[in-house]
Amino acid sequence: MMLRQDSNQDGIEWITLTNPPVNVVTRALIEQLVAGLRRAADDPGTRVVVLGGEGRHFCAGADLREQQRAWQSDDLGPADLGEALYTALLDFPKPLIGMAHGAVAGAGLSIIACCDFAIAAAGTRISLPEIDVGVLGGISHARAALGKALVHYMALTGLPIEAEKLAHTGLFLEIVHPDSLRDRTAAIARTIADKEPEAARYTKQCMRAIEGLSQLAGYAREHALSKELRASGVTDRLVSQFLQR
Amino acid sequence: MMLRQDSNQDGIEWITLTNPPVNVVTRALIEQLVAGLRRAADDPGTRVVVLGGEGRHFCAGADLREQQRAWQSDDLGPADLGEALYTALLDFPKPLIGMAHGAVAGAGLSIIACCDFAIAAAGTRISLPEIDVGVLGGISHARAALGKALVHYMALTGLPIEAEKLAHTGLFLEIVHPDSLRDRTAAIARTIADKEPEAARYTKQCMRAIEGLSQLAGYAREHALSKELRASGVTDRLVSQFLQR
Amino acid sequence: MMLRQDSNQDGIEWITLTNPPVNVVTRALIEQLVAGLRRAADDPGTRVVVLGGEGRHFCAGADLREQQRAWQSDDLGPADLGEALYTALLDFPKPLIGMAHGAVAGAGLSIIACCDFAIAAAGTRISLPEIDVGVLGGISHARAALGKALVHYMALTGLPIEAEKLAHTGLFLEIVHPDSLRDRTAAIARTIADKEPEAARYTKQCMRAIEGLSQLAGYAREHALSKELRASGVTDRLVSQFLQR
Repeated sequence: MMLRQDSNQDGIEWITLTNPPVNVVTRALIEQLVAGLRRAADDPGTRVVVLGGEGRHFCAGADLREQQRAWQSDDLGPADLGEALYTALLDFPKPLIGMAHGAVAGAGLSIIACCDFAIAAAGTRISLPEIDVGVLGGISHARAALGKALVHYMALTGLPIEAEKLAHTGLFLEIVHPDSLRDRTAAIARTIADKEPEAARYTKQCMRAIEGLSQLAGYAREHALSKELRASGVTDRLVSQFLQR
Repeated sequence: MMLRQDSNQDGIEWITLTNPPVNVVTRALIEQLVAGLRRAADDPGTRVVVLGGEGRHFCAGADLREQQRAWQSDDLGPADLGEALYTALLDFPKPLIGMAHGAVAGAGLSIIACCDFAIAAAGTRISLPEIDVGVLGGISHARAALGKALVHYMALTGLPIEAEKLAHTGLFLEIVHPDSLRDRTAAIARTIADKEPEAARYTKQCMRAIEGLSQLAGYAREHALSKELRASGVTDRLVSQFLQR
Repeated sequence: MMLRQDSNQDGIEWITLTNPPVNVVTRALIEQLVAGLRRAADDPGTRVVVLGGEGRHFCAGADLREQQRAWQSDDLGPADLGEALYTALLDFPKPLIGMAHGAVAGAGLSIIACCDFAIAAAGTRISLPEIDVGVLGGISHARAALGKALVHYMALTGLPIEAEKLAHTGLFLEIVHPDSLRDRTAAIARTIADKEPEAARYTKQCMRAIEGLSQLAGYAREHALSKELRASGVTDRLVSQFLQR
């Protein structure tokens, strides 16, 4: 297996990439991750998913050796399964937190950029090394979270940027000491796991639905989804609880 | 009245939310704010509007007690007047500065995010507590000003973020000492009030017109509006003045 | 001539605005810059272009005296050639680095915002003085790189913002000591000049193609362009080299 899926009774499911030494993205890893996300989506006990990587690096990108073999045998390689992977991540219906450390390169950066937000260990280095191998695919995901200058620099040089420069941006919520990475992430995940699941599900739907819309069109979508959520009875219960505090 | 509208002879109109203790947004407050903005738009003496809140907090969000009563009596509550409120703010034809302090939550954050820019007092805390009550509506406005990671974290946890982390972003221009909030905001407002009103009006129109357009399409819109402004005679006068300096 | 075009054997072409004292943008400067970019695009020896300005300021904006004369004689002025200028910059098919110092105002800021990224000398001040002269056109370019609050403040006040506040944003990659500006820019340019030219060309195409697209639609465009690049044979060679390291 190229990933490990752990869950306790607390509603937090930890999905960990385990493809040593640097968790490169293979076809099998994508298939297992997509299947793991589907299980987590379907499991009523899972309230929030944290996605991390075992070893010294979160993920060094696609497995180019496998990709090369795939090209030579006219088979599909990891780069050909990108759409399935990124769709599964972006459309995941529950909160999804990235936990980044070490190298976060290429497809690894795309995975992190498809999470709702990520916490990074100090010393994390993100990069788009695609230009050095001629396999493009990480720019769009990076641009969804980071400004033009940074992304164009990374895409044109292939050089890494330190996460320390990116706190409170569209990519990283916080940069923490490596020893605190798991605890800090768990604390945030617990806060989210305590939310009413239907409210969390509608919040996710709103965040996805408003992307690319104008402020007013986005608000209209949110208002419509809010009415749907209220029709389920959840809103009246939450508002009553809030007002009785 | 749930707001106060003050203007001197200097072209600055101060609109202050006055619904103690935390300036929650009621249906009456929205109606008064929309009417107040219309008066300010029509008053040739008003060159710029500053929007602030009285008391310890700018605005703690929608009045959920009123909203609950509205649902129970099949009436409209504050959440149902959001479109009118945000349209009035976003389409306001004159410069509009937000002045934030204390709690800026839910609809309060949306109001600030609809201003051209805001100055915040140190210690200001912004939040999207919607997930805790199941009344959605603030994500689209927050996303127009802030990156994905921050907004998704706020929307999923309901927890506040300190304004200190958000200087020079799309939301806050500056974070200043609470004692300086009004003076610093007034200084910027005076600079804007001294501008030629037609030039300010066209600048506002440009900023609104280019939203969501590509760089080149946006530039083409600006160039077209610039020609309109020149047809009014204003440009020739301003350019002559500038060249005679 | 209003610009100087220098290239060594290292693939870096330096284009320098030379219209003393403050490099205002004239019609001739635009025509020369557009022609210079075309030459640089066509010259197989040019791998990357750096765009800077001679003297104490990068560029103080459009030549308003020339624009006034143009209006008076029903001729085209610099403001009427904006589309040609910005199209040439945004569609430039090779990496384009801005090197900013001193004043970067109006059209000068637009030029920088059309580069892939820019390095700024400490003390660089960016501004949108358009409101003071009634010639609009810089908002859309600024908004592509900077958040709403900053841009609306700059557009409404005409006042400058110090580059120091804008490191790691969509506009400036880094702010460096003025004495290091050229060396630091040259170091980054050399890194880019060493890339396989076809890979750099496709990377530029990707960055341009994904603008305004959703994350998934952008990824699909990148994947399609990546297949095109591989059809040229470049990818297989780069991947083989990478795997033999």
